[in-house]
Amino acid sequence: MDEFDLIRRITPTETHQRSLVMGIGDDASVYQPHSHCEEVVCVDTMVEHVHFRFDFSTPFEIGFKALAVNVSDIAAMGGTPKYYLVSIAIPPHGDETVVSALYEGMKALADTYQMDLIGGDTVATHSDFIITVTVIGEVSKGKACYRHSAQTGDIVFVTGELGSSAAGLSLLMNELDSPKAVDTAFFLERHKKPQPHIAAGLICSSYSRVSLNDVSDGLASELNEIAEASHVTIEIDANKLPIHPDLPVLRKDWLEWVLFGGEDFVLTGTIPQADWDSFEMQCRKKDIQVKRIGQVKGDQAASVLLKDNEQQTMLMKKGYNHFKK
Amino acid sequence: MDEFDLIRRITPTETHQRSLVMGIGDDASVYQPHSHCEEVVCVDTMVEHVHFRFDFSTPFEIGFKALAVNVSDIAAMGGTPKYYLVSIAIPPHGDETVVSALYEGMKALADTYQMDLIGGDTVATHSDFIITVTVIGEVSKGKACYRHSAQTGDIVFVTGELGSSAAGLSLLMNELDSPKAVDTAFFLERHKKPQPHIAAGLICSSYSRVSLNDVSDGLASELNEIAEASHVTIEIDANKLPIHPDLPVLRKDWLEWVLFGGEDFVLTGTIPQADWDSFEMQCRKKDIQVKRIGQVKGDQAASVLLKDNEQQTMLMKKGYNHFKK
Repeated sequence: MDEFDLIRRITPTETHQRSLVMGIGDDASVYQPHSHCEEVVCVDTMVEHVHFRFDFSTPFEIGFKALAVNVSDIAAMGGTPKYYLVSIAIPPHGDETVVSALYEGMKALADTYQMDLIGGDTVATHSDFIITVTVIGEVSKGKACYRHSAQTGDIVFVTGELGSSAAGLSLLMNELDSPKAVDTAFFLERHKKPQPHIAAGLICSSYSRVSLNDVSDGLASELNEIAEASHVTIEIDANKLPIHPDLPVLRKDWLEWVLFGGEDFVLTGTIPQADWDSFEMQCRKKDIQVKRIGQVKGDQAASVLLKDNEQQTMLMKKGYNHFKK
Repeated sequence: MDEFDLIRRITPTETHQRSLVMGIGDDASVYQPHSHCEEVVCVDTMVEHVHFRFDFSTPFEIGFKALAVNVSDIAAMGGTPKYYLVSIAIPPHGDETVVSALYEGMKALADTYQMDLIGGDTVATHSDFIITVTVIGEVSKGKACYRHSAQTGDIVFVTGELGSSAAGLSLLMNELDSPKAVDTAFFLERHKKPQPHIAAGLICSSYSRVSLNDVSDGLASELNEIAEASHVTIEIDANKLPIHPDLPVLRKDWLEWVLFGGEDFVLTGTIPQADWDSFEMQCRKKDIQVKRIGQVKGDQAASVLLKDNEQQTMLMKKGYNHFKK
């Protein structure tokens, strides 16, 4: 592979952001931040055989997802993504077609949000593909949504269906007898090409106090992080968790996927009761299927409780209270 | 290795930048950019056995250099580094002591510049350590130093000695019969713990028009980049290139190191003749050994010429004109 040829291929021929002063082509990129904004930055790495497999996803889908997981972190702060930088370690089995397709997958998502690729590096490695993406976004000054913002009485919400990505992964791994009646393509798509909830995050940031996480590690894990950071107890209702109607057809204990599956990349968080009706309406206007799933309770135990009819269980980050990590 | 324990260890207990709103501990970090500044961003990856070796350098030194090469890119824009994010792929042979020392090396350099670690990721890999560092800095609005700014008549300069890092690498690889009289520790240090020239870059950015690169790939390569971006011809004088007095003792054709060795991480660039005296004085005040090494010539051939007494040679990025890449 000719590195210079590759760099030429992946360097954008045009850019979206007017605030970009100097893109790829110097020692570093330069942009002018908006004066009423704060900058939001995150980085995430995906490793072949750990986070993705070329026999499960196309290179395009893998690139798309590598950027999506980072854009989702910006969404979880209530921010708007602006720029991204990509460092990619290429093993001997990675040819130029594969590498180009990875970048095309990223570009497809980036174009949706008018994001510009402003930096990166390509290196050779001996074993697996490793893709590291840095995303820079912006949020209006003082309007970022933090995990520590939950308070007693707040309503707990999610911005979309849970468990679909985990179901998709199970289908890919041939763990299920998938009935023909089930729309398996839907679940596969949710796993392979997750859509970050930027629009929902923006609505969240327009309210005075919303705690927020994206569901990357599973609902239980995300709510535990909010409970810990906010020193509150969060109670959710198992019967209110939004799912695709086919999910229970695929697996009897589908609630495992919903609570611990992760990679749904919907947003979950809390909002004051007084703001709920307005928040719900704003979401509906944008076709965001926000759902109320529980409430923040008045003690500081920093725990997450699952109410399932008459039963109450404590949810740990990765399992029920009777599991040990 | 316990990932949570590792994250706890490397998460800063205190931060430097007052503009940091939220550091590590949420989905992304948030900071308030300075209103009179532009943001400067770069990312660079170092791979074990390609860019570093644990039998040549300590983990502390490797971490130091992984951050230094990125900080040097910020210097090459005339910027000040503020924040960094680290993604690290850890192979089975990488134990917690090694990983901690890598972060300590980065922190040692970061503290020099009051930089804060604001994000990162740790993943497992099968073969080699891979360290990806993103650095965010700032530069006063409109004051970044670009490669395309060189013009006919400008003076060409470097901000320090050349070839020392390449000499250090040769010493490490046992390629030389090193005479005992030579201060080998100096050269080894230059290779293992390069110092970014932030102060020099800041002085450059205070002038109206300075073209600038850091010497990472070798002087010939950096000057070719400036010549190409600015559409000028650059002529340098072999007798004026600053070197450590012991360099010629180590190798007869030491000029190879000086022109093509790279990793010196001094800055090279061009400045209008009218600004030279003032620029030189500003540098001297800060103990920066700036040296005039040539001049920008009045044609647009985008080439770099080396004058060596009566001889003139065309310098390609990686060799003389009689070499093919």
